[in-house]
Amino acid sequence: MAKIFSTTKAYVAGFLDGDGCIMFQLVRRKDYIYGFQIRASIVFYQKTMHRDHLEWIKRILKHGYIRDRNDGMTEYTIVGFKSVIEVLKFLQPYIKMKREHVEVALKISAIMSGKFTIEKMVKAARFVDQYQQLNYSKKRVNTSKVLIDFLAEHKLYPCND
Amino acid sequence: MAKIFSTTKAYVAGFLDGDGCIMFQLVRRKDYIYGFQIRASIVFYQKTMHRDHLEWIKRILKHGYIRDRNDGMTEYTIVGFKSVIEVLKFLQPYIKMKREHVEVALKISAIMSGKFTIEKMVKAARFVDQYQQLNYSKKRVNTSKVLIDFLAEHKLYPCND
Repeated sequence: MAKIFSTTKAYVAGFLDGDGCIMFQLVRRKDYIYGFQIRASIVFYQKTMHRDHLEWIKRILKHGYIRDRNDGMTEYTIVGFKSVIEVLKFLQPYIKMKREHVEVALKISAIMSGKFTIEKMVKAARFVDQYQQLNYSKKRVNTSKVLIDFLAEHKLYPCND
Repeated sequence: MAKIFSTTKAYVAGFLDGDGCIMFQLVRRKDYIYGFQIRASIVFYQKTMHRDHLEWIKRILKHGYIRDRNDGMTEYTIVGFKSVIEVLKFLQPYIKMKREHVEVALKISAIMSGKFTIEKMVKAARFVDQYQQLNYSKKRVNTSKVLIDFLAEHKLYPCND
């Protein structure tokens, strides 16, 4: 495998800080027993004319997929905890503006590691709340409170075992 | 003066590719004898909460000024041929997506160097046309044709000396 230079990593970290979006979202899933999923993603958006640049970045990050939208834009998306955390750890030494995003992401990942429990999910959902404040997300509907209400309604939380 | 690491330069080049805008514009100036000025600029836009990040980049690039707009955004702008070219040459080894922008910028700068002549200005204005195609600018009014028409109308071009 070709060696990746530190300047290449630093370049991609700068590009992520300028163009990328790191997201953690609490997503409603009607087919899930706990009603919600925590979704991790990194997205880059560029005009489709720059698709080759996104493909170059994908060759470096080795995760995700590229999709042309029908409005002249192309999205490069990395979805899933494992992939997102691997990419963030790889770029972490050089990320500057989104450094806090990376730290909260690693906390969410650490909480969710190992065997799944409802307590872990509620704790992680609270970090997702904090995360979305970093992204200034205003139209957010699913907060940790919504999750807790759902779990309480279905007698899944608080747990007494 | 503190040494600037190659990874720092690479990071800033990535941030410029992701967030920055390199522009060359033909600007109408009623107080100018030739009616127009070629304006070079580099602009970064971030939410005002990230002003400190733009200040950090300004300390590296050593040119330009930072201004808070009243819509929650902050602009870091570098204006003027000399400053823009210095910054682009400094970052050039690491710029990827906007590499073509840098090449055209250096051509415009080379044409305009030395003693000012109308021929040089017309030639540079043609490169500015090419430049604005790179930026997909659609609402552009001032093209090299507009400049040539203005100069012809004022009997300044074509030159017969």
